[in-house]
Amino acid sequence: MTATTALRPGAYRYRFAPDAATAMVWMGPGRPFEAVAVLDIDFGPRDVLVEVELATVCGSDVHTIDARRPSPHPSVLGHEYVGRVVGAGVDARYADGTRVQLRDRVVWSVTVSCGLCPTCRRGIPQKCAELRKYGHERFDGEWPLSGGFASHVHLREGTAIVKVPEHVAAEALAPVACGVATAAAAVAAAEQLHDLDDATVLVSGAGLIGLAAAAIASGAGARVVVVDPVAERRELALRFGAAETVDPGRGAAARTVAAACDGGAPDVVIEASGSRRGVELALAAPAVGGTAVLVGSVFPDDPVGLDPERVVRGLLMIRGVHNYTAADLARAVRFVTASERRMPWAELVGATVPLADLPRAVALAQTGRHVRVGVRP
Amino acid sequence: MTATTALRPGAYRYRFAPDAATAMVWMGPGRPFEAVAVLDIDFGPRDVLVEVELATVCGSDVHTIDARRPSPHPSVLGHEYVGRVVGAGVDARYADGTRVQLRDRVVWSVTVSCGLCPTCRRGIPQKCAELRKYGHERFDGEWPLSGGFASHVHLREGTAIVKVPEHVAAEALAPVACGVATAAAAVAAAEQLHDLDDATVLVSGAGLIGLAAAAIASGAGARVVVVDPVAERRELALRFGAAETVDPGRGAAARTVAAACDGGAPDVVIEASGSRRGVELALAAPAVGGTAVLVGSVFPDDPVGLDPERVVRGLLMIRGVHNYTAADLARAVRFVTASERRMPWAELVGATVPLADLPRAVALAQTGRHVRVGVRP
Repeated sequence: MTATTALRPGAYRYRFAPDAATAMVWMGPGRPFEAVAVLDIDFGPRDVLVEVELATVCGSDVHTIDARRPSPHPSVLGHEYVGRVVGAGVDARYADGTRVQLRDRVVWSVTVSCGLCPTCRRGIPQKCAELRKYGHERFDGEWPLSGGFASHVHLREGTAIVKVPEHVAAEALAPVACGVATAAAAVAAAEQLHDLDDATVLVSGAGLIGLAAAAIASGAGARVVVVDPVAERRELALRFGAAETVDPGRGAAARTVAAACDGGAPDVVIEASGSRRGVELALAAPAVGGTAVLVGSVFPDDPVGLDPERVVRGLLMIRGVHNYTAADLARAVRFVTASERRMPWAELVGATVPLADLPRAVALAQTGRHVRVGVRP
Repeated sequence: MTATTALRPGAYRYRFAPDAATAMVWMGPGRPFEAVAVLDIDFGPRDVLVEVELATVCGSDVHTIDARRPSPHPSVLGHEYVGRVVGAGVDARYADGTRVQLRDRVVWSVTVSCGLCPTCRRGIPQKCAELRKYGHERFDGEWPLSGGFASHVHLREGTAIVKVPEHVAAEALAPVACGVATAAAAVAAAEQLHDLDDATVLVSGAGLIGLAAAAIASGAGARVVVVDPVAERRELALRFGAAETVDPGRGAAARTVAAACDGGAPDVVIEASGSRRGVELALAAPAVGGTAVLVGSVFPDDPVGLDPERVVRGLLMIRGVHNYTAADLARAVRFVTASERRMPWAELVGATVPLADLPRAVALAQTGRHVRVGVRP
């Protein structure tokens, strides 16, 4: 990578060595991926260039490819990743304010935020007025290397970057940047309203977010019960801190859930399945004064019936969580690092394929057999 | 009042002087009230006997009489009141821990809580496992003087009692024990999630709770917008701190609301109307990261449609508030006392009738013309 032309103070046009940078570009629903070489990029004084070590396929990548939600294209998908710093602007900094160093191993936020708009100042950087998102931008614009399914990712100013230890498996770290950090945000949303120590937390859905929420909530002292229709997922939940699991198919869910919660209603429900049934359970299950955190419903669906009298008389709280803040990402990294020997984080990546075989990774992800499928450049 | 028989340590059977204590007993839906003399009551060492100065008719009293919600009967209704202490057990104490004195002027909570059960210990005394409520108990049980529509009310251990100044009008104080304290609880629920200083708060419904919520939120620094279909109520709202009012009948509510909120969405909506339309507005109106506090929906209605994706992507919070804690009651008393010269609290009681004419007070309340109707023994 070499500097060529000055663009603005401290910013340059950087040119890659021939064939050094490649992205697998998604051309749109029903169309094949195309491997495209990137020749040069605009690079600012607070930007970072990362060589991707591992990216993972998120459920929302699959939704995008399956046209279940609109997304710009052509684009480089992928927003769960771990990599190594191979270029850093003179003032590139981590989320904690320290300076980014070449050769550091890092994960980074899905979102790029300005930090200055009213929404950022209200502590919701993920809804920044100038928001950009990794894995969600046009390839043919001014930010071609914006997704994880590439050899390199260009980290722009306003990204929360967190350094990660060398000894933790890439498979444990890549999913942190989406699912695990979002789970940390969901747990933090519950903690704003409840002391989780000795609380009962019901987690609906044992995908990545649900498993990570179970792990982090149990780490905060909660008794965690996980609901999932798939036996293998329920077994996995027990390894991620769940004290008990429930099969929603066996009898009335509310009844079996109450029994699993030691006969009482849970203080907190974290709804990570995104299913209609899961949302209905989340609204019905909490104890008086309890909280339902909705985090899985990220695609359009019919409205769910809400009984306002039950909300009022039950002093119920319902709150939505989408993406996360820098603090949530940092907590997720700390939690995975500290629990790596106790919890099978790396096993969540059930298969890994080379970047050039991205379509096969997507096909594997579409089967739903693995919590995550890895893509390695 | 004289002690007669010892019941348990410090507790006695107290006998009233002949014709001293009278209650207007509600015999059930569609039946007349009956004036019944009370001869004696069980009186514990932490109990207080209050001579009622003024009680007001709450909307929920009207709902009960109109059979829109089930309530035990025969019973003494009325749970908004101010009175004077005419009897106090040796260890009767105010919510702040100081000792109750004879001749003090007081208001007290709707609820009687044990303070020991798990729900009380979680800070939700209004949902105590042993909960009793003023104006909601059988007259022919062990607690005949439980409602405000009587000459006396028997305050039982577990009631939050707050001393009130002599100079404040009874009409300003009686409604505190239900509507104003509930409004304080709704504002406190919003404050747990938002700094109200410079926030925009939309209040739906300009009844007692809505007007009081507008007043308390504006006192906390919020810019308050009030929605109500009745012109007189909107005018009243401006005197209770609203910066602007909206008629929901004029054009699309959401659009006119946004315009009134200076073109943006409100940070907080406090839904105090209990109407379906109000709840739908509360779910639709908040800004990203905003909160809808539901407080008006205290009777059965059809479910309202909730879009889980909007909750998640909007980081929306929805929380129900029912009744209040001792701290909310104390804040409501402080607020009304401090704002009595600025805000027309006493005018909210549009008419006052003698206790013996309670049916006329109810008929006046049923017209909906007055925010409150007073009943004076």
